[in-house]
Amino acid sequence: MATTPDLVRAHGPGELVRARLDLAYDGTDFAGWAAQPGQRTVAGELAAALAVLLRLPDTDLAPVVAGRTDAGVHARGQVCHLDIPLAAWTALPGRTALTPGESLVRRLAGVLPPDVVVSRAELAPPGFDARFSALNRRYSYRLTDAGYRPPPLRRHDVVSLGRGSSPAPSSGSGSAVLDVPAMDHASRSLVGLHDFAAFCRRREGATTVRTLLEYSWARELSTEGDPLVVARVVADAFCHSMVRALVGGALAVGQGRGDAQWLLGVLRGRVRDPRVVVAPAHGLVLEEVAYPADDQLAARAATARAVRSL
Amino acid sequence: MATTPDLVRAHGPGELVRARLDLAYDGTDFAGWAAQPGQRTVAGELAAALAVLLRLPDTDLAPVVAGRTDAGVHARGQVCHLDIPLAAWTALPGRTALTPGESLVRRLAGVLPPDVVVSRAELAPPGFDARFSALNRRYSYRLTDAGYRPPPLRRHDVVSLGRGSSPAPSSGSGSAVLDVPAMDHASRSLVGLHDFAAFCRRREGATTVRTLLEYSWARELSTEGDPLVVARVVADAFCHSMVRALVGGALAVGQGRGDAQWLLGVLRGRVRDPRVVVAPAHGLVLEEVAYPADDQLAARAATARAVRSL
Repeated sequence: MATTPDLVRAHGPGELVRARLDLAYDGTDFAGWAAQPGQRTVAGELAAALAVLLRLPDTDLAPVVAGRTDAGVHARGQVCHLDIPLAAWTALPGRTALTPGESLVRRLAGVLPPDVVVSRAELAPPGFDARFSALNRRYSYRLTDAGYRPPPLRRHDVVSLGRGSSPAPSSGSGSAVLDVPAMDHASRSLVGLHDFAAFCRRREGATTVRTLLEYSWARELSTEGDPLVVARVVADAFCHSMVRALVGGALAVGQGRGDAQWLLGVLRGRVRDPRVVVAPAHGLVLEEVAYPADDQLAARAATARAVRSL
Repeated sequence: MATTPDLVRAHGPGELVRARLDLAYDGTDFAGWAAQPGQRTVAGELAAALAVLLRLPDTDLAPVVAGRTDAGVHARGQVCHLDIPLAAWTALPGRTALTPGESLVRRLAGVLPPDVVVSRAELAPPGFDARFSALNRRYSYRLTDAGYRPPPLRRHDVVSLGRGSSPAPSSGSGSAVLDVPAMDHASRSLVGLHDFAAFCRRREGATTVRTLLEYSWARELSTEGDPLVVARVVADAFCHSMVRALVGGALAVGQGRGDAQWLLGVLRGRVRDPRVVVAPAHGLVLEEVAYPADDQLAARAATARAVRSL
């Protein structure tokens, strides 16, 4: 990692340096990541806070994100980059002994609303692009089939699919319990390099070919004792609404409306199936974004950019 | 447990039967448990929902609770009882095959707001009193000393005491890290039968003698990967604000403002110490209430009632 004096020598104070920010947010009250006029978005809040701290117009600050999340989707390990004038970056610590990145994290904590937290800020290594340098993204999806409602303290990030949910059970005796081993088996069969058109919202001129690296389901007791059903989904990248459609496919299996063979058939058919319902946004969390070693960042970005722009 | 036909024989349809309700709530938007005019309270919401379902005036429904929680305090294992006319109880299932208790849980899920969930309802065994029959109450308290802010999805039930919190650190290098082993050691020394006047808000004519059965602190990684510092506190009963004052005492130790000897001295002095700051409400959760075997319920209630009314 280049130090600040190195950078001043290399770039001069008026030039832009690229910062990497790691952040987490509760998506409940956001209309998603991407800035939109008149909407409360994560990128919008972040740009506004940075504009205040860096004394720049917020139109100059367009954070580029690893995983664009939809309205209501959360993140624990989101990553973005943005280009900042070197002079503004080096001025951040003021009279403190902090590095510019430490100072930015501390100041952002005082300016950002409590549903967004930047946990780390630092100068990015050369060639780093939060979106295109990423090797893969990991998401989780949490739901519960116990009771009629999610545990109150988890209602913002756990979807209830239990008794009383559709389809309406004839008795309250827990007939809607999910077959989690069947969901897990069917989900694992989708892993690999495939055209995920059946699980993507179509976008003109964009490929729907992705490498699904992991897709599994398991019952899990939270540290607080809440019984959850949790999915782990990893891919090189995801097309729009892909994770929530994959969850919908597994749910059809878990509720006995289809089996692993059917789900594989949907994938191979490459058209959307009405039994695959896009699952609610609030069960979804972007957990982690993985990057290659510093000397592979630029090459990875070039490859990913070429593939995804067709 | 008596069946409905048994009860009709024993009491006649116009008599009252006692129901036990197990419930959980997110205390964030409540002015505590106890019904108060013009305030949104858990007991108020519950009585209003029950009044609709049982077609009774809500003034006839006064739920008696095991642990009266203050504004902002949460519960995962709260218990209350209330006395319901037998005819209203037996009418609950309507034409379904559910028991009255199952039917009540299901109907409450459709009527209560999402921050209160009743997980179980059933006729209470003879002699049961949610408050006085309880053997002990278990609370947890969650905080974090990592970063400047709690993880966004845990900000409602985790208190941030990290960098940037009081006392202000001279650098951002994590100087405010809590000494959790010291907190644990000091807390364990308070266990036993004591006069907890130093940790209680005084109330005329009420004893402050309690048996603290467990008080421990540990670092814990949540299933979602959030680094937390968690207290486990069990006592036969708690006086007002006692758990939050005990947490404040441990925090003084964890932040180096006192040691185990000092904390024991505070207990023995039986007067409040300015270094013991009552900790914020939102880190506190009532986790569980323990009751004796059915044949001990009435005896336990008689003992507890005698002790606590002086």
